[in-house]
Amino acid sequence: MGPHPAVAAIRLAVRRVLHDVLTEHRAEQRAEHRNTPPPTTADPHAPLVLVACSGGADSMALASALAFEARKLPVRAGGITVDHGLQEGSDTRAAEVAERMTALGLTPSEAVAVTVGREGGPEAAARDARYAALDAAAERHGAAAVLLGHTRDDQAETVLLGLARGSGIRSLSGMAAVSGATRRYRRPFLQLDRQTVRKACVAQELAVWDDPHNTDPAYTRSRLRHEGLPALEKALGKGVVEALARTARLSRDDADALDTWAADAETAVRDEAGALECAKLFGLPPAVRRRVLRRAVIAEGAPAGSLFARHIEEVDRLVTGWRGQGAINLPGRVEARRQGGRLVIRQG
Amino acid sequence: MGPHPAVAAIRLAVRRVLHDVLTEHRAEQRAEHRNTPPPTTADPHAPLVLVACSGGADSMALASALAFEARKLPVRAGGITVDHGLQEGSDTRAAEVAERMTALGLTPSEAVAVTVGREGGPEAAARDARYAALDAAAERHGAAAVLLGHTRDDQAETVLLGLARGSGIRSLSGMAAVSGATRRYRRPFLQLDRQTVRKACVAQELAVWDDPHNTDPAYTRSRLRHEGLPALEKALGKGVVEALARTARLSRDDADALDTWAADAETAVRDEAGALECAKLFGLPPAVRRRVLRRAVIAEGAPAGSLFARHIEEVDRLVTGWRGQGAINLPGRVEARRQGGRLVIRQG
Repeated sequence: MGPHPAVAAIRLAVRRVLHDVLTEHRAEQRAEHRNTPPPTTADPHAPLVLVACSGGADSMALASALAFEARKLPVRAGGITVDHGLQEGSDTRAAEVAERMTALGLTPSEAVAVTVGREGGPEAAARDARYAALDAAAERHGAAAVLLGHTRDDQAETVLLGLARGSGIRSLSGMAAVSGATRRYRRPFLQLDRQTVRKACVAQELAVWDDPHNTDPAYTRSRLRHEGLPALEKALGKGVVEALARTARLSRDDADALDTWAADAETAVRDEAGALECAKLFGLPPAVRRRVLRRAVIAEGAPAGSLFARHIEEVDRLVTGWRGQGAINLPGRVEARRQGGRLVIRQG
Repeated sequence: MGPHPAVAAIRLAVRRVLHDVLTEHRAEQRAEHRNTPPPTTADPHAPLVLVACSGGADSMALASALAFEARKLPVRAGGITVDHGLQEGSDTRAAEVAERMTALGLTPSEAVAVTVGREGGPEAAARDARYAALDAAAERHGAAAVLLGHTRDDQAETVLLGLARGSGIRSLSGMAAVSGATRRYRRPFLQLDRQTVRKACVAQELAVWDDPHNTDPAYTRSRLRHEGLPALEKALGKGVVEALARTARLSRDDADALDTWAADAETAVRDEAGALECAKLFGLPPAVRRRVLRRAVIAEGAPAGSLFARHIEEVDRLVTGWRGQGAINLPGRVEARRQGGRLVIRQG
């Protein structure tokens, strides 16, 4: 008798990602020193894959599937749990999670304590601290990849959070299946629904920990999960989560394509001295022109996070609605003005 | 003392659109016969602008603002109300709405009866019948424009309905401020919130009619309006409607730019015999390649409305994941296969 269908589903998802990691690892090895034989299971030089595990259901399921699949492949599997130090006894719990990962056969299995700052609100600060710790652990252990347990439901929530910002399709792209500068982070469950992952925990009798933050209505994501999304599903039907996840994938590709276009266009609309020519900007499609302007403003020192659609729209009017208006003040003390048919963008 | 701020807001929105219509109308006139003097208010050849009015608050507010602003401009103003014949006494009500429009000073002021079919569900069928009647009325009266009362809240609902389809950024673009083959339809209130428009009705003591469909939970849009969106606002904050409307504008421009790119790319990836070359398709960004494939499949007779993202993804795998797979069956008896490095797309 095979495993429970939910267990089979999470293992398949992890297996696919491990195959990708192995393929990329081998290509890299070949590029570094040709003719090296491929590593075998016992090989201590087999790539290390870490799971980032909070002890919650999604990441415990991920840890179990990684431990299971790694045994059948030339891959070493380990786990990291981050102690955010935000709740009483979080250190004890982190140590327990590390023990559970060890019990699953993950080596190394570590608890890492971090200090959460305040920048960008509690959720963003905790996330920043967590990724910094995961990056450091991956570097320390020379890991080829770090697996994250985000599900399709997390993706749907992320898309809605992006939608609430209303800042365009990049913010609708949600989380990528592969991210990080070195393609470090992988999200094997991004197309699996949370219910399947939870069922896999029950079927394997995995002890899991419910983070009270996840049900605390003080957190936007929690309100979205427990009230916003269910109401949306009630109005629009059960397919909403899948539709949001598909929107993320399509939006990401669209945003990537438009960014490529804008990068090319930016070169084309500059004169010999490197100034942006308004006549050439005018000829671009509005979506491309606004991206070119955004790039140019950021290149002069405006912080991307403080630059909103309305700022770019105002700069755009120097091109499309020129009636002699003055210089426009932008975040980061950057100023944009039109002068002799050119846009002059400069930090003051 | 000036008018109530809400009344001022709806009038300003209509005034802006009337200016656009006039500017375009004059440019057309000039193109047709040069040196014609611009029309004056009394001119029977002044362009006619119609309002599509259900008798509900949004379109009654629009009718009142059109009547007010048209008096100050060389514009004739009329109104059309459509009797969908779906409710007992709808003909009497339509006649009443026409009378109210006449009382506002709109001439012509007509009630038009339509027969609603069944295609695409009750909401789509009613919409199709309505626009056909409005098109016919605009032709009959030689109207330069037809104003529609959709507000920013309607736009937000439309974006969420598009999101639920999960078919990409075109379906997130909502309604355009200007639409129709001859730029006939204009939506002056698309950036005004429903509350302002409703206040303008109260301030002007306009009698309005509440369509029971708007609160009937059998209709998706009604569920969205009364349950889905309020829950989303509760989770994400009051700015959600504005963010959705902004998403619509940005998505529309992005989708337009990518469509332009795809149209150019389609020419570039065809060989001398007009066949799609897989190697050239492979070099395109995924977002552009999928649009090229969609265009090609539709050009061979696949109905756009039945063509889903998964169909195009399967055709895309003939290019990006070629392992000798067979022909792919698509809606409208269209078939796609790979043959000698070319994609052959044909209706069977």
